[in-house]
Amino acid sequence: MKITKEDRMSCSVHLSEDEKAVVILDQTRLPNHTEYLTLTKIGDIYEAIRSLAVRGAPAIGICAGYAMYVLALQKSTESREEFCRHLEADGEYLISSRPTAVNLSWAVQRMLDVVHRHPEKNVSDLIPLLKEEALAIHEEDIRMCRSIAEYGLSLVKPGDGILTHCNAGPLATSKYGTALGPIFLARETGIPLRVFADETRPLLQGARLTSYELQKAGVDVTLICDNMASIVMKNGWVQACFVGCDRIAANGDFANKIGTSGVAILAKHYGIPFYTLGPRSTIDMNCPTGDDIRIEQRHPDEIKTMWYSEPMALPEVKCYNPAFDVTDHSLLTAIVTDAGIIYPPFDINLRKLMQG
Amino acid sequence: MKITKEDRMSCSVHLSEDEKAVVILDQTRLPNHTEYLTLTKIGDIYEAIRSLAVRGAPAIGICAGYAMYVLALQKSTESREEFCRHLEADGEYLISSRPTAVNLSWAVQRMLDVVHRHPEKNVSDLIPLLKEEALAIHEEDIRMCRSIAEYGLSLVKPGDGILTHCNAGPLATSKYGTALGPIFLARETGIPLRVFADETRPLLQGARLTSYELQKAGVDVTLICDNMASIVMKNGWVQACFVGCDRIAANGDFANKIGTSGVAILAKHYGIPFYTLGPRSTIDMNCPTGDDIRIEQRHPDEIKTMWYSEPMALPEVKCYNPAFDVTDHSLLTAIVTDAGIIYPPFDINLRKLMQG
Repeated sequence: MKITKEDRMSCSVHLSEDEKAVVILDQTRLPNHTEYLTLTKIGDIYEAIRSLAVRGAPAIGICAGYAMYVLALQKSTESREEFCRHLEADGEYLISSRPTAVNLSWAVQRMLDVVHRHPEKNVSDLIPLLKEEALAIHEEDIRMCRSIAEYGLSLVKPGDGILTHCNAGPLATSKYGTALGPIFLARETGIPLRVFADETRPLLQGARLTSYELQKAGVDVTLICDNMASIVMKNGWVQACFVGCDRIAANGDFANKIGTSGVAILAKHYGIPFYTLGPRSTIDMNCPTGDDIRIEQRHPDEIKTMWYSEPMALPEVKCYNPAFDVTDHSLLTAIVTDAGIIYPPFDINLRKLMQG
Repeated sequence: MKITKEDRMSCSVHLSEDEKAVVILDQTRLPNHTEYLTLTKIGDIYEAIRSLAVRGAPAIGICAGYAMYVLALQKSTESREEFCRHLEADGEYLISSRPTAVNLSWAVQRMLDVVHRHPEKNVSDLIPLLKEEALAIHEEDIRMCRSIAEYGLSLVKPGDGILTHCNAGPLATSKYGTALGPIFLARETGIPLRVFADETRPLLQGARLTSYELQKAGVDVTLICDNMASIVMKNGWVQACFVGCDRIAANGDFANKIGTSGVAILAKHYGIPFYTLGPRSTIDMNCPTGDDIRIEQRHPDEIKTMWYSEPMALPEVKCYNPAFDVTDHSLLTAIVTDAGIIYPPFDINLRKLMQG
């Protein structure tokens, strides 16, 4: 698949026209303000990652790749050793902006490896190689999302209604996104689909991000509260559910945004196919089942006070606020990856995929 | 069952200590401000009903009964005819505050019937009869809720976890509420229960009202987002679901706050009993099935902008915002009424109940 400059420039993270800055769509300002940040200073890039102006593991990785290239451009030294030392320090600092984000350190390391892999090259020769690597990180992500989108699109037909939960679209990744990939590809190729986006409490990624990016792309999207998924399915409006995944266990159980397992149970009740979409890197063969996935608990204020002009519950009321839940593989119709669609039995077929 | 003055005074709507005013707990100020309004003027009472300071069909009925008594007290005329004419005009005006609220016109009519039923009585003799009727409306509701609470409580055991959706507690009714009745009765009688309250988007009655009144009563309550019900059930924390009902069809299908059918499907998936609780007046034998219940559609701004300091979705994004959904009777373990617990087959057993 050929990736054009236009493909890259249409992403929420990309290299500026003059190729001297990282441009990111500021996600903290959505959906009310569509503002791009053009960043060249390391402190500003650090802050953009830390403050979630750029979010989503793949998008952060792409941002880090471009950042390392942009920072390399700014080194005035001609000493390879000094150049290398400064770039390593930059990378270390960037990684500290979100220490647990795997894609961040992975992308930084990949950029530093370019330097280490070419001990014979001087600074001016390294620069184009670094640019090439940053573009490669970005283009690989577009290619991977495109594959997921193609496989996913093969599962639906024109006119279908798709229900999605949380946000696994281009904002969090690159051109197509994962769970939203088939929908963007359908739009691109003129296949009409109708999308129902769960608002996804408490952080409202469905309202703030999914409905935003689908609407902007001209997709027929309807925003609903999470508790309306049942009636929407009962009305016969949903022919497939597409959700992302944060981690897939070896038996096909998977963790995703809180509420995903409920959607899967409703889909099963109403006889609607339920799919999770993600790259092979999401599959963790060292994790036997969903029981082995630890669920992050978050602060009660996300439920009681966040976004609101006034608190919605008494300060002393307890909240339970898990960030994710685990969906049992028995509720899953198939897993859509960049290397194909995996059907049950998941334990056997995931092993084959990862070994092949 | 003996109802004491203390029982009445503990309700969110009651007659003032000096018996000259209606006192209501202002529900629009909850949960941040616990403020009682002491109302004597017809305009203020009208406004309290219209603005939802008092809400919930039974609570509105109780308020209207007391209002008619309080207004009767203020008539300076000794002419029975003039008294009657003024009271009828007051009633008509009060009814116009929420024209579709059945309990409102029902309570007003019941108060006017006192006057009509006693054509021989003069004004000063009618006053105590009106007071008696207003108290009767209130006490009947307490008694009815108490019966529902007792039947409901027989379905759970000490230490059980109860999941509830929306608000069907004392704030909306009288002393016990309907769906929350067993929980308040358990608290009163020292039986420990643990409650999970769905916040209930978009109007957040679960957060603002249910968690408020349970917390104030000293019940162990945990607030969750609607999409967390699945993981809470999977964790083994829920032994029964208790929800209210707006209308029960002759076959046991019932309408209740949006999201109720989803909770019922989850409960069935996890093997948890699911009950709806309400007075016999909620059963509509003229409505054959849930398909015959019309569902009110509400404004998109309840999803996109209400409560928030900034909109959560683009103005052009469509929303689907039904106020209720219908839960199929096949998902229902039993219907708890003030006259007993109704099990399947619901069509036969509801007919027996309503005929007996």
